Amino acid sequence: MGGVSPMKGSIRISEIFGPTVQGEGPLIGRPTVFVRTGGCDYRCRWCDTLYAVLPEFRDDWTLMSPDDILAEVDRLSGSTPVLVSLSGGNPALQPLEPLIAQGRERGHSFALETQGSIPQPWFAALDWLMLSPKPPSSGMATDWQALNECIAAAATGPQSVLKVVVFDETDYAYARDVASRYEALPIYLQVGNAAPLMTHEGAGSEDADTEAVMRGFRWLVEKVAEDRWFTATVLPQLHVLAWGNRRGV
Amino acid sequence: MGGVSPMKGSIRISEIFGPTVQGEGPLIGRPTVFVRTGGCDYRCRWCDTLYAVLPEFRDDWTLMSPDDILAEVDRLSGSTPVLVSLSGGNPALQPLEPLIAQGRERGHSFALETQGSIPQPWFAALDWLMLSPKPPSSGMATDWQALNECIAAAATGPQSVLKVVVFDETDYAYARDVASRYEALPIYLQVGNAAPLMTHEGAGSEDADTEAVMRGFRWLVEKVAEDRWFTATVLPQLHVLAWGNRRGV
Repeated sequence: MGGVSPMKGSIRISEIFGPTVQGEGPLIGRPTVFVRTGGCDYRCRWCDTLYAVLPEFRDDWTLMSPDDILAEVDRLSGSTPVLVSLSGGNPALQPLEPLIAQGRERGHSFALETQGSIPQPWFAALDWLMLSPKPPSSGMATDWQALNECIAAAATGPQSVLKVVVFDETDYAYARDVASRYEALPIYLQVGNAAPLMTHEGAGSEDADTEAVMRGFRWLVEKVAEDRWFTATVLPQLHVLAWGNRRGV
Repeated sequence: MGGVSPMKGSIRISEIFGPTVQGEGPLIGRPTVFVRTGGCDYRCRWCDTLYAVLPEFRDDWTLMSPDDILAEVDRLSGSTPVLVSLSGGNPALQPLEPLIAQGRERGHSFALETQGSIPQPWFAALDWLMLSPKPPSSGMATDWQALNECIAAAATGPQSVLKVVVFDETDYAYARDVASRYEALPIYLQVGNAAPLMTHEGAGSEDADTEAVMRGFRWLVEKVAEDRWFTATVLPQLHVLAWGNRRGV
């Protein structure tokens, strides 16, 4: 993908792959093409996509125009309308409005996942907005004002949902706090996956500890049952169970 | 639960358990209490709940009134409104209308799963109707007329979806046929789980072959990607991955 000269409106892309299925959240199991942008304002301790976050991977990223990105999406989807999952890094750092507008003209739909640290007016043009504020185990602090602004920017355009990764009791308490702040939004609790840190050579290990993931799932199910928290949805990451920590699936 | 005398309007119950999470379909991950009825008009080869199907288990079933069932649901849920999953066997064999009406008055919502062989006017009172016509591997033949009538009976009351279990290529072709017959309904493809046949003593094996389930999942994801069948959703049974073939979770 190299050799493209930077220009106004171009988007920093880490990878485009699919079709596969969405492994997480409200669209779990839904066929999709992933468009992963490069660059992030966060440094989560357990980040599973550091190759789309750290500046040392910047040489792997490519500046692409919306046209180039949609040409690649159409090549992968055979030009059949498909759900495009905008992920990162933090895709809210990129100027995605023209991509979304042109993609929707071609019949595609768009879901975007972000931690909710950078509101963008074009959130309103999405079909789905997954807001994933990061729990204490990430080492990051939540900017509630920015998260409020993300929700306000989306308004009634997309279906907006919350998704919180939960590794432990402290994360669970954080998720309860998030839910109580935004009672109108559905909330998804996602079992934490302690993926080994990746390097330039790839994942620390391509095999995930699926037993640990399912143990975490059972624990979370027990928690919501005990607390009668029946409005939460509890899910593991299906792609981790199916493909471990491998990229491109 | 024994010792209740049969009376008009009573419901044949195999088990009531929860709260746990729904492991399948559009409500995957959603906390729920299961109300499983006893008795079925089908004999699927790979049935994973024969204890709710075969007459030889009839002594384990109890006739319960809607009041008794709701008292048990409320005991399990702490009277917090909860999603009630009506399953079987084939719950469409039972007179569930008063249960649904009274349960909704208490704030509960109701999802029902059936093969679609017996239409009932009260389907319209549900929140969710999961129609799960059985593929060739089940050994059962689909009564399309009855399935049409189930969909018509539900009308615009509940969210109606299709769910098809897929073990092999023949089942997959059947699922494509189902989707083409009912284009307006979302369709969920569920990875087949070859649970060993159960006896009075319990499951043939309480451990599921989770590796086989995830292999089936990867195969199904490849199929829909190759065929660009982007309107299908592909899911394994989460409860099988989490708890194997155990009952009551």
